[in-house]
Amino acid sequence: MTKILAFDIGGTKIAYAVINEKGEFLGEIIKVSTPKTSSGIYDLLKTTVKGLEDKIDGVAIATAGAINNEGTRITSHVGNLPSGYNQTDFMSLTSKPVLLENDANCAGWAEFAIGAAKGCKNVVVLTLGTGVGAGIIVDGRLLKGKSGAAGEMHFPIDSGHKRKCTCGLYDCFEAYASGTGLNANAREYMGENFTSYDVIRGIAEGSHQARAAFEQWQNYLVRGLTMLANIFDPEMIVLSGSMAKFVEYEKINKEVNSQILTQPFILKEAVFENNAGMIGAALLLTDRLK
Amino acid sequence: MTKILAFDIGGTKIAYAVINEKGEFLGEIIKVSTPKTSSGIYDLLKTTVKGLEDKIDGVAIATAGAINNEGTRITSHVGNLPSGYNQTDFMSLTSKPVLLENDANCAGWAEFAIGAAKGCKNVVVLTLGTGVGAGIIVDGRLLKGKSGAAGEMHFPIDSGHKRKCTCGLYDCFEAYASGTGLNANAREYMGENFTSYDVIRGIAEGSHQARAAFEQWQNYLVRGLTMLANIFDPEMIVLSGSMAKFVEYEKINKEVNSQILTQPFILKEAVFENNAGMIGAALLLTDRLK
Repeated sequence: MTKILAFDIGGTKIAYAVINEKGEFLGEIIKVSTPKTSSGIYDLLKTTVKGLEDKIDGVAIATAGAINNEGTRITSHVGNLPSGYNQTDFMSLTSKPVLLENDANCAGWAEFAIGAAKGCKNVVVLTLGTGVGAGIIVDGRLLKGKSGAAGEMHFPIDSGHKRKCTCGLYDCFEAYASGTGLNANAREYMGENFTSYDVIRGIAEGSHQARAAFEQWQNYLVRGLTMLANIFDPEMIVLSGSMAKFVEYEKINKEVNSQILTQPFILKEAVFENNAGMIGAALLLTDRLK
Repeated sequence: MTKILAFDIGGTKIAYAVINEKGEFLGEIIKVSTPKTSSGIYDLLKTTVKGLEDKIDGVAIATAGAINNEGTRITSHVGNLPSGYNQTDFMSLTSKPVLLENDANCAGWAEFAIGAAKGCKNVVVLTLGTGVGAGIIVDGRLLKGKSGAAGEMHFPIDSGHKRKCTCGLYDCFEAYASGTGLNANAREYMGENFTSYDVIRGIAEGSHQARAAFEQWQNYLVRGLTMLANIFDPEMIVLSGSMAKFVEYEKINKEVNSQILTQPFILKEAVFENNAGMIGAALLLTDRLK
């Protein structure tokens, strides 16, 4: 049995647990607040690793940011973590194998390996949260690109500079199909003080404005899914993240499949929630240790 | 030395030649008009193969249409070839190895293996002709998807049902960044009887309308390139096809690289022209024979 100490490092919390080669948690998942400095984060990781070092085969870390193809360091800026975090020397945490991977890629790998897309070889896992992340599996391998940054869901799907995206571009997929996008729709369709929560509640209460705000959000999701299905010809697209549970799967699946040029795919909701990052990171390291 | 008899089957012409493992032509390239029936095409291929069978190690065929992952048959409709063509039994042409691959994929492979992108591992080769085709190489392997149909450049990059695409969708990348797209711009900016040729000539003559028509075409190309760079994080994007020679490479390269979230890529014009399909098909089969 392989035992991997897996971390998921987020802007608010760091979660960790020991996970076996089947992706099962051995013992409890511990969550702590993310320290305010990058050295604080490193010290926390180091102390945690030290306490478990004799019992584990390696350390796997899911983190925000682009990760190089060797899985050893962060190669991009990381917005929601302390300054200097992206220069952390994760490899010095232990003499045992350490693997670093982008959190959306880890979540994608978990769904592909043992989750919603188990048995598929070509899978796109979209994480619809504050932003939109993607973990893409091509013929059984993680899509990384030349510098590990592949899978950025930033590309214009509309014109006219209607909505500015966090990436600096206008009218990006992410600016529409994310939770931030639904919030913007809430303001546009319902009024200045409304949010995505009002949209969801409003639909249940029969509000036409709420329905229209949601439909627009879903229409842009359809555009992105069409693109991904035509480009990757996947067996499955999996939606995860906080927004995934609101999607009308049957309707969207039918709509996208009716307009793609590739063969039909299946649209599914992710099976793992917040723990997908840790599971995927652990499984990626387990594969590497084989 | 490996000798592959390579065909490129198009709607108007069929070209063939014998190609070695370096992608070099052994003898001349022969071009004949495409027969009007699918059995006519089969007979032509069969006769050609028979005449050369003793001298070759296999037959490689670049063709329109999606090709299954085994490289044995066409799995899609093929618009510009005779009815029944997509059911052709290419494997019965000879007892020697036969490999079938989509022509845009073959062209992409040729540029990746020995052309403009030699030495790269992640490459997108866009063929800008009447439509837009793509051959995409991910970590040294051809992107095929579950059914060999991956790389379809059909996805909305604008809204408002401004322009209908051949795929049935509106406002597709292909409807803008193709030669057909530039023809549409010529009509919109210059007048009903104008074409892409008038745009190119008009720019040379200092026409503002021609320049505007071209700028819009290139702006949509930028949108597509941004998407491809953000999704695939390639070392290089290569443009081929009849429209590729008009692109302002330095300007577009700078523009796209200034707005992507991935690491910078290089934009280049393809080195092979009409023969890329045959070369790529031959090299793919050579690799398989190793």
